[in-house]
Amino acid sequence: MGDAAPPGISRWAIRIEFNGRDYVGWQRQKSGIAVQQLIEEAALCLTAGRPVSSVTAGRTDSGVHAAGLVAHLDFPDDAPLSRKAVRDAINYHLKPHPICILEAAPAPEGWNARFSATWRRYRYTILNRYSRPALQDGFVWHLRAPLDIAAMQQAANYLIGSHDFSSFRAAACQARDALRTLDELSISKEGDLVHIDTQARSFLHHQVRNMVGTLALVGHHQWTAEQVRDALEAKNRSKAGPTAPADGLCLMDVGYPDNPFHRPA
Amino acid sequence: MGDAAPPGISRWAIRIEFNGRDYVGWQRQKSGIAVQQLIEEAALCLTAGRPVSSVTAGRTDSGVHAAGLVAHLDFPDDAPLSRKAVRDAINYHLKPHPICILEAAPAPEGWNARFSATWRRYRYTILNRYSRPALQDGFVWHLRAPLDIAAMQQAANYLIGSHDFSSFRAAACQARDALRTLDELSISKEGDLVHIDTQARSFLHHQVRNMVGTLALVGHHQWTAEQVRDALEAKNRSKAGPTAPADGLCLMDVGYPDNPFHRPA
Repeated sequence: MGDAAPPGISRWAIRIEFNGRDYVGWQRQKSGIAVQQLIEEAALCLTAGRPVSSVTAGRTDSGVHAAGLVAHLDFPDDAPLSRKAVRDAINYHLKPHPICILEAAPAPEGWNARFSATWRRYRYTILNRYSRPALQDGFVWHLRAPLDIAAMQQAANYLIGSHDFSSFRAAACQARDALRTLDELSISKEGDLVHIDTQARSFLHHQVRNMVGTLALVGHHQWTAEQVRDALEAKNRSKAGPTAPADGLCLMDVGYPDNPFHRPA
Repeated sequence: MGDAAPPGISRWAIRIEFNGRDYVGWQRQKSGIAVQQLIEEAALCLTAGRPVSSVTAGRTDSGVHAAGLVAHLDFPDDAPLSRKAVRDAINYHLKPHPICILEAAPAPEGWNARFSATWRRYRYTILNRYSRPALQDGFVWHLRAPLDIAAMQQAANYLIGSHDFSSFRAAACQARDALRTLDELSISKEGDLVHIDTQARSFLHHQVRNMVGTLALVGHHQWTAEQVRDALEAKNRSKAGPTAPADGLCLMDVGYPDNPFHRPA
């Protein structure tokens, strides 16, 4: 199993919360600070400076937030680790960055944060009112004109299930194919906020933001629900709507059949 | 009526949302920037620079947030005003401060944002988990040890109703007496968050934060519910618990029998 921890390595699962505003996303980039880099550097305190490598269940983009992203860290086998030590030592060294480890647990045999994941769950939040956000600035997409939630849900229903999502895939997407199965895509209202909750085994690059940008056209009656179905069937990125901003997107949770955090300590 | 708008004055009601983090609170202070001052200055664009004065339904403290604070603005009678002009012009000039006017409406005859209000509603939010807040930093009080919600509610029930709240009143409080009627004080859990929702005709200075600081002692089993009842009966600030931090507090809404925002435009 190429995905399992190599010999001489102690693999740990971590669940992470972060405010993505000031980072280039999870993965290291030349253009700025990455969440991955900050976590790997903070983990050095546990290995007397020997390198720690990480793999994530979701490579979030620049500006995207996380409430429950899961990753794994590969430590040298002789590092003295415990659930509390891994969580607290990394959190201590992450300060004052708005990034924290919520839980840490030893990975089950053969477990990999990316390849063992069976679902990812995202929430996209729109502030749907006239005045700009004061309290939620940076965490919402601000759309002034009222959204027709029922029409958005009707369009969303065409996207649920197994489809070729080429029309909702970023040009830079590196996935081998665009076939994905959307288990959920539900629109709900909470005061001035519109939430778009979605779950799938995996998503294409920018898929959630491209779906949201397209559904917003339906919410504003610029598109019909059927035009979204047609855009999906076209398998052509230029036929779907624009990419919604990163601010409103948050990776909520990642699912595993053998969840490291649910095993007895 | 000394509280009504003076002759030659056009009074407007505004509903305001703000992130209180960077301000000394609503009222002008020597120590920093006040929300009142920013709003009054932004409103000058509507009067060609002639002064605009304001009165608020709640003089929030430094660091306290608002999701629906109501105030009134007294404009010179000849200023050309409309619901849209008042909201949008002030919002334009408030940028980039995290303060915005949600609604503006002409005040009914004799209406005063402070004296016509019949209830104020606050929410206090505690993040009750081990790891520090990354997404909600600045909007919650972080308490690591698990809170016993049922015990907190039992203690809160002693505070509901009409009482002399001297034990929960800041030394600097300028109210004539400490008799207040608490209509609601309810504790609820939402994931890692504990919400304390409270409503009353009016509150004493620091009353909500002092009640929350005391209820947290009960939640951590350092106090019994009966000790809160005893603290209330002592009518002595030194007998109640500490003041909870400002970060977790948000003024949610203000009620009026004749609500200016509910009248036809």
